[in-house]
Amino acid sequence: MRRPNSEGPRRPGTVDEFALIGLLRERFRRGGVPLVPGDLGIGDDAAAVTPRHGGRMVLSTDLVVEGVHVDLAVSTPEDVGWKALMVTVSDLAAMGAAADYVLLSVAAPPGFDVERLADGVADASGICGCAVVGGDLSAAAVLVVSVAAVGSVPDDGHAALRRGGARPGDALFVTGPLGASAAGLRLLGGDAATGPVPSGPSAAHRRPVARLREGDAARRSGATAAVDVSDGLVVDVVHLAEASGVGLALAVGDDAVAGGATRDEALTGGEDYELVLATGDPDALRAGFAAEGLRTPVPIGRCTEAAGVFTLDGGELPAGGWHHRF
Amino acid sequence: MRRPNSEGPRRPGTVDEFALIGLLRERFRRGGVPLVPGDLGIGDDAAAVTPRHGGRMVLSTDLVVEGVHVDLAVSTPEDVGWKALMVTVSDLAAMGAAADYVLLSVAAPPGFDVERLADGVADASGICGCAVVGGDLSAAAVLVVSVAAVGSVPDDGHAALRRGGARPGDALFVTGPLGASAAGLRLLGGDAATGPVPSGPSAAHRRPVARLREGDAARRSGATAAVDVSDGLVVDVVHLAEASGVGLALAVGDDAVAGGATRDEALTGGEDYELVLATGDPDALRAGFAAEGLRTPVPIGRCTEAAGVFTLDGGELPAGGWHHRF
Repeated sequence: MRRPNSEGPRRPGTVDEFALIGLLRERFRRGGVPLVPGDLGIGDDAAAVTPRHGGRMVLSTDLVVEGVHVDLAVSTPEDVGWKALMVTVSDLAAMGAAADYVLLSVAAPPGFDVERLADGVADASGICGCAVVGGDLSAAAVLVVSVAAVGSVPDDGHAALRRGGARPGDALFVTGPLGASAAGLRLLGGDAATGPVPSGPSAAHRRPVARLREGDAARRSGATAAVDVSDGLVVDVVHLAEASGVGLALAVGDDAVAGGATRDEALTGGEDYELVLATGDPDALRAGFAAEGLRTPVPIGRCTEAAGVFTLDGGELPAGGWHHRF
Repeated sequence: MRRPNSEGPRRPGTVDEFALIGLLRERFRRGGVPLVPGDLGIGDDAAAVTPRHGGRMVLSTDLVVEGVHVDLAVSTPEDVGWKALMVTVSDLAAMGAAADYVLLSVAAPPGFDVERLADGVADASGICGCAVVGGDLSAAAVLVVSVAAVGSVPDDGHAALRRGGARPGDALFVTGPLGASAAGLRLLGGDAATGPVPSGPSAAHRRPVARLREGDAARRSGATAAVDVSDGLVVDVVHLAEASGVGLALAVGDDAVAGGATRDEALTGGEDYELVLATGDPDALRAGFAAEGLRTPVPIGRCTEAAGVFTLDGGELPAGGWHHRF
């Protein structure tokens, strides 16, 4: 859209919407899903695309705001792009959906390197198998990145995973150990972001990975509910319990705590983007994961009859871990 | 997603993502497209929806940034929400697509009334016939609104309108007189926004309307290309010409200038969100519009053989009206 404060029509060389379109075209030609012949990608008024799987369309959006979700002292522009893509796609993973198409909007202050951010988005979208098909760019006093993702659930007889599908007696699992992101942020401290591609403890924080394959395997293995661990295990599993009308008897063992993370970081740290899964058939879930070569899901407890009742190893709640909404 | 700087998990009463979800649920229950039975609307990890028309999926996104695209001295929060929705859907209109689903992301400073913004989005989405199915909310130093829209083109034998489909000899039309938005902004000056619902000169600026019916009628009437007037007629029609590889012989008469607007405002003002249409069969276009009870499209010239050649009434270009990219 037009910027009324700008001096007349835009000119080449200014970092504006047209520049982003060109930049996106260039960056996203090399990766992601090839469009179906006849599809329109980036550069028209809107992208026209053909659903990859047919089936059910699944939509999600997330914001990444400088100073709120990311600290540019510990994350590079590439990290921010990567993360904005992955956290949005993680919501599709939690539905057992595939990621098909992405729209990228960036409001950035002068001097911020939008091209490096687009590189991060391109790398992440390549891993997720989705095509970036449009975007918008604006000046702003602070960096705000908004990603919208369009995914789909194939017509394979297994519905999208909901938060509200868990039943009393269902076993609860998490797709991987938790707390690595919080531990990474703690270890990074105020150190400057290094490299375009982080390794070690900073990787989990700076480069989370959406669990698309795990979500799909869980859906096809008869899981009853799922949620991604964005706000923290305790908060997110309570969302699942609330939506399902069940209680929780959590038993989080050391195998659910990432190496280098504290137990508290695993329970409340958040931003791990592993999936919490509920299932009435744990053997089917484990078999489904094994068949796909995925890490064995880690048991963390079960759902109970009494909605609103929550136990953690039969003991007290971690501080701040429960907001008593039911 | 989680806010690392926040103190522990979110609590009720804070303006956060959960609050937005509740707010969206409430606001968008009353209007928009009813979801298909079995569809998941707002409140799960992502919305799962069934394409309304089948056919081609069409995607667009736009940013509205305070101080760049909107001035809160002349636009109310409702206006900002309305405008963010309409400018995004306008890109679908320019494809001849229907608007089906919308995702809303808001990064807002403390004290900004997000509920009033959501009211504006709800009103606009009701008019456009689309359902708001998800969103995200964050704190930020400045207001940034991002809307992503998912539309579709029905399987009716007429493809989506592209910018690049115009041919030499095609007649050019605009769906309504231009310059009203720029004139409205000029007349508003620094006056405080009044209303929740503006009238008179401020309406065109504060409450633009996406030309969905016109875009659909043009597509079904054999139009060859379309673009919406967001940046200004001269800039936008050049985009169409560039994409189509044609030149332009514009002849913009007084009937293309909105009442109260200057000729310069009509040519370069922008933000009118009327559509520019190219067609090899002007009679079919007029008949298609008449059959739908739409305003007769206004002729503004034709496409020529020589790409890169641009004339405006055979005379000089308006100042700033051409950025010489071809």
